[in-house]
Amino acid sequence: MKQLIASDIAQAMANASWIRRMFEAGLEMKQRLGADRVFDFSLGNPDVPPPAKAREVLHALADDAVRPCGLGYMPNAGLPAFRAALAEKLTREQGVALQGQHLIVTVGAAGALVTFFRTVLEAGDEVVVPAPYFVEYGFYCGHFGGKLRPVPMPGPDFALDVDALLAAVTERTRVILLNSPNNPTGAIYSAEALARLAKAVDALNATRERPIFILSDEPYRLFAFDGATVPPVLALSPYAVVLGSFSKSLSLAGERIGYIAVNPALDGADTLLAALTMTNRTLGYVNAPILGQKLALGLLNEQVDLTIYDARRLAMARVLREAGLTFALPRGAFYFFLQAPGGDDVAFCNRLLEQGIIAVPGRGFGMSGYIRLCCAVELDIIERSAEAWKRAMQG
Amino acid sequence: MKQLIASDIAQAMANASWIRRMFEAGLEMKQRLGADRVFDFSLGNPDVPPPAKAREVLHALADDAVRPCGLGYMPNAGLPAFRAALAEKLTREQGVALQGQHLIVTVGAAGALVTFFRTVLEAGDEVVVPAPYFVEYGFYCGHFGGKLRPVPMPGPDFALDVDALLAAVTERTRVILLNSPNNPTGAIYSAEALARLAKAVDALNATRERPIFILSDEPYRLFAFDGATVPPVLALSPYAVVLGSFSKSLSLAGERIGYIAVNPALDGADTLLAALTMTNRTLGYVNAPILGQKLALGLLNEQVDLTIYDARRLAMARVLREAGLTFALPRGAFYFFLQAPGGDDVAFCNRLLEQGIIAVPGRGFGMSGYIRLCCAVELDIIERSAEAWKRAMQG
Repeated sequence: MKQLIASDIAQAMANASWIRRMFEAGLEMKQRLGADRVFDFSLGNPDVPPPAKAREVLHALADDAVRPCGLGYMPNAGLPAFRAALAEKLTREQGVALQGQHLIVTVGAAGALVTFFRTVLEAGDEVVVPAPYFVEYGFYCGHFGGKLRPVPMPGPDFALDVDALLAAVTERTRVILLNSPNNPTGAIYSAEALARLAKAVDALNATRERPIFILSDEPYRLFAFDGATVPPVLALSPYAVVLGSFSKSLSLAGERIGYIAVNPALDGADTLLAALTMTNRTLGYVNAPILGQKLALGLLNEQVDLTIYDARRLAMARVLREAGLTFALPRGAFYFFLQAPGGDDVAFCNRLLEQGIIAVPGRGFGMSGYIRLCCAVELDIIERSAEAWKRAMQG
Repeated sequence: MKQLIASDIAQAMANASWIRRMFEAGLEMKQRLGADRVFDFSLGNPDVPPPAKAREVLHALADDAVRPCGLGYMPNAGLPAFRAALAEKLTREQGVALQGQHLIVTVGAAGALVTFFRTVLEAGDEVVVPAPYFVEYGFYCGHFGGKLRPVPMPGPDFALDVDALLAAVTERTRVILLNSPNNPTGAIYSAEALARLAKAVDALNATRERPIFILSDEPYRLFAFDGATVPPVLALSPYAVVLGSFSKSLSLAGERIGYIAVNPALDGADTLLAALTMTNRTLGYVNAPILGQKLALGLLNEQVDLTIYDARRLAMARVLREAGLTFALPRGAFYFFLQAPGGDDVAFCNRLLEQGIIAVPGRGFGMSGYIRLCCAVELDIIERSAEAWKRAMQG
């Protein structure tokens, strides 16, 4: 076979992701044991139905779509009405007065991340990120020569270790990338830690020609439990940039609607936004999907039923505790990230697999010795997995 | 202001596109003269309504969307049912027996182009393209260090000059990029010329470790008039790769649904497809929008009313001829690309602008001395522009 693909893509394919490997092991297990004997906690596909109003909004869109340009191009930054409404929502969430011109609509949070990295990174720039971290981050900045610099956060609760992050900053640092509520740990970073980080970054930026951005990736902002709140990041620094998506909050992950917002206090905010708009266009997204934008606009004051996610979280905690595992109860997102008994995450995942439980080794998130469980699965599956967990712990 | 954006993005922004500049000049003109006195032939936003069946399909989707995972993630390569149905359609169009596994669904044709370039290009690789050409191509390959090598085709009809293309091939050539029916010229490349090019590329590839791909960008495949047919490209070489979109054929440009298909005869087709799938994921597209995929699946045997486009084409030709302009009547797409009287495209566009006519200078497409007109505008606008054209030619 001739050399059909770029060398770095070929290399990345050889290192298939752990999530993918566990997914495939799970498929094989389902064939062997039967689907109802397999408990798959590997993938994060939000299965709680979209808000009921989605039906009504989509019916209205159906009537509107068949007029001229009903599904046509729009400004690359998104539908003006959606940007304006989203700006109002983000103004409330972030405590910064935003207008539509301060954000662009993107192809999901992933599209926002790639657009941002393309816009600000030069080859060799570094992106500092707390570990464990969402493994796709490495690809997102790597396409443009960016290098991920993971900084381990201390378990079991994985609170933000600001000193460790700052110690990792070099001349080449361009972005500090935060994700709170966090995938995979479920941690919610405290307002105090975030403010301290922002203050330190502002101080560093005072003497840097190429400033460090604090990029806050917030697709799980809504997913906070036990009365926890998710502190806003945008207000903390002119160099703060916030992005998010509706994939989880409205259960429309397949339609790919996200956004990225810039602090108007940034000197050059207009230039950065114009550059993001151009990059969003030229990366081939062109604009975020029109049906999804109109749907999200119609659902902007709605959300999925969080009590379903909370019940799953508590059930998962019960099952794990009863099996003898120790962990910090996550207050955000819908993941558990816990120490693998024995210390070898792959070995423990294999032991779980023998009992029909599919988990992902922590090394798939840049931290060996842990496993990740995704609770975006039906309560019944979580509860029925209890005996399998006990067997795995005894095995 | 500090350095907020990457240097190459800053440079690209300084060279704002001619399409954009004319668009802005047009806005100013509309304010000055009134919208009904301005004849805007600058932008290609398909304004013919989607097929009437779109309404019915969308109503059905509305009822389906609110079940669990109704709008959730899917395999990154697209909905299996859509891939299978699209493979059947492409089998008929391209004369190559395709199954769903031989294509991936993308975020429009633009997403397909960017995904392909990221998958196959190394920095410094060259993409040979007939000029004039769609100006975004330069961005699409430039993100990954690819360099566009435009090769002028001879007017007035801009038929494919195979010898000129082959003469531009170097050791670093990785892709020959074709677009037929062509934007901006409306040319449809002949089966003979395509076959000769493919044969020559196959011969070159016999001794190359890194083969040259023939990438056929076909968003206008349906748009062929005067009995013209658009010859298939995929069958001509194992190194042929075909991509397209439903933006024009179904008028759903804003929803972003396209595809890219690989010839199963390629040694390593599976590897290339797996790499395209991974790149489509990690470029942040994740998957093409789910509502759009389901809509296009429901409309796969439909198309917009082409008689509307044909009537516009003929009206435009009449208006231009009566104003004394000479040109080859385009048989495909919905553009006219014609010599600027006097030879200076920018000067002629400015003369047109004085009469309320907005056209784009050919240098915006890599060929000075010509102007591009987009006929995706109402017949009435074309007809009402006749006097303005005459005035511009006399002025």
